[in-house]
Amino acid sequence: MGGTADSVDRSTVHASHQASPLGPYLLFLGDTVEPGYAKTAFGLRDWAPERCIGELVLPGGTVSTGLERLSSEEAHAKGARALLIGVASPGGVIPPQWLPAMLDALRSGLDIVSGMHSRLSDIPELAFAAEAHGRRLVDVRVPPANIPIGTGAKRSGKRLLTVGTDCALGKKYTALSVTRGLQARGLDATFRATGQTGIMIAGAGIPIDAVVSDFLAGAAETLSPAADENHIDVIEGQGSLFHPGYAAVSLGLLHGSQPDMFIVCHEPGRTHVLGYPDVRLPTIEEVILQTVALGKLTNPAIRCVGVSVNTASYTDEQAQRLIAAESDRLGLPVADPLRGGPAFDQLLDRCQG
Amino acid sequence: MGGTADSVDRSTVHASHQASPLGPYLLFLGDTVEPGYAKTAFGLRDWAPERCIGELVLPGGTVSTGLERLSSEEAHAKGARALLIGVASPGGVIPPQWLPAMLDALRSGLDIVSGMHSRLSDIPELAFAAEAHGRRLVDVRVPPANIPIGTGAKRSGKRLLTVGTDCALGKKYTALSVTRGLQARGLDATFRATGQTGIMIAGAGIPIDAVVSDFLAGAAETLSPAADENHIDVIEGQGSLFHPGYAAVSLGLLHGSQPDMFIVCHEPGRTHVLGYPDVRLPTIEEVILQTVALGKLTNPAIRCVGVSVNTASYTDEQAQRLIAAESDRLGLPVADPLRGGPAFDQLLDRCQG
Repeated sequence: MGGTADSVDRSTVHASHQASPLGPYLLFLGDTVEPGYAKTAFGLRDWAPERCIGELVLPGGTVSTGLERLSSEEAHAKGARALLIGVASPGGVIPPQWLPAMLDALRSGLDIVSGMHSRLSDIPELAFAAEAHGRRLVDVRVPPANIPIGTGAKRSGKRLLTVGTDCALGKKYTALSVTRGLQARGLDATFRATGQTGIMIAGAGIPIDAVVSDFLAGAAETLSPAADENHIDVIEGQGSLFHPGYAAVSLGLLHGSQPDMFIVCHEPGRTHVLGYPDVRLPTIEEVILQTVALGKLTNPAIRCVGVSVNTASYTDEQAQRLIAAESDRLGLPVADPLRGGPAFDQLLDRCQG
Repeated sequence: MGGTADSVDRSTVHASHQASPLGPYLLFLGDTVEPGYAKTAFGLRDWAPERCIGELVLPGGTVSTGLERLSSEEAHAKGARALLIGVASPGGVIPPQWLPAMLDALRSGLDIVSGMHSRLSDIPELAFAAEAHGRRLVDVRVPPANIPIGTGAKRSGKRLLTVGTDCALGKKYTALSVTRGLQARGLDATFRATGQTGIMIAGAGIPIDAVVSDFLAGAAETLSPAADENHIDVIEGQGSLFHPGYAAVSLGLLHGSQPDMFIVCHEPGRTHVLGYPDVRLPTIEEVILQTVALGKLTNPAIRCVGVSVNTASYTDEQAQRLIAAESDRLGLPVADPLRGGPAFDQLLDRCQG
């Protein structure tokens, strides 16, 4: 172990060490007719409306975000600075019929931002045009080069990490909701993105699961640098300490984030790890104990400030009942951030310090 | 998270998915005059003598392994199949004066095996000559492509992992010694290498700390595949669960290895994590408890079979006394594998099942 992350491709611009944040965006929907493929565009519209100027749909496309339809030139005139690929294509490659619109975007002064599997800079026409027009091709799946090894040294400022009983149950949206809730209270809070959708929403971040193992904790340290004592970084969690495939990602992120506070995210009713029918889901209590046991290595003051439950499949009344019961049982604030209300206010109270 | 490790460079041959194991070796010492730079060559001579045919020293070089001095052609005639770069150079790059000998090795039918920072395949002359002569350029720092995500599924066969209170205190040599000890007893045991020196010694393996985080556990699963019920894989550990920079690597390796048994490696007298003067070293007991607590996710039957102490700086008598005292205190076999003796025999007894 040692050295720097030199096996990472340096030819592609990445989302963290940006001279300036990504966007504002023109959301690109291509010629898709399947709303399920446009999850990224919908996520951006919902979570970063202030960074979305409009949408660009190609002939034949039927999916819309409801935002104003603009050409790249019109969008640039209205303040857009990047075309964001908001739609997935089967196979994760850029279809040839998208290329003319992407080249036009570069000509119009827009960067291109993508979370697709194939890299923008691997398409020679795009690489050439970006160079010619002085624009950036940003692949948010690519981590920065030259990430240092984690030091474990204490940094100034406060940090909150969302952790989970599993993958895919609301760690990103909890972190976003808490960030906004704290900001609405006049606090100095920053959302720190660790996955591609989060990076697009924030306009910056590090795709933590794409970092070479040796540099995981160091990447998390880089992501939330030293700050003012009253500043709160709210860090998007990944995976789970009890996940047979991804626990290492969660641990590196925990150690590097050295959070003062964490929120456990959970989906009531889920009994097994997603995609692992033989692996029992840990309880919320197990996750709290394990997160404290492991997190204290880099922050002995780490504490759980509450639980975020994903009650998307519940009625309002069912959700209220569940939230009250869980809060009683655990002796902690429990809330569904997407429902807000007094329960979420109590959770935010704890996050203030 | 998901997909395959496609951000890994595929242009370089790596040490695992080899059609055939690496070597036997001709050890290349270059023109070095500093024995400290030749640690790799000495390690190979000491730990894989049966794979070392001779040494190649350039004019001006004064360091020797004591093996027979051979040209590439002579070594090939005696059974060598790879020139192993056994010496480090300042900066980790191949000095130009080494190139003629390396090209001659390829012409003589030898592969080239390197653990240096700069990649062999990035040197056009070498890439061209390897292609022309049908030889391999093997960079042992480069992990294989297409590593799957960890499944956590139980595999047949037995597994033993060496873990540690820290980095750099004998996990590799303990695993090698235990493998040989078991083999000497007629057991079917295989050393599984996870670092570059180990990979050179074994002729195969995966440099686990160079694997992209998402695929860490999957890489460890690939490293020790399903085997006969009585077969024992002895897996080289990395880092420590209490290391602020590398704990994630240790956890991914632990989860993917799903060991039935582990040995805790420790250097008596070390009080702080190497290079981290502010981080207290965990106790052996803490490492045992943590390894069981985390390892049981993928193997509920995980158990500690003993402790390996590195007593290199002790006299024989001091070492015997320390080993007896630690064994009494912990109620476990404690041995320095490099000293052997009855204590090591007791440790091996436990490793048999």
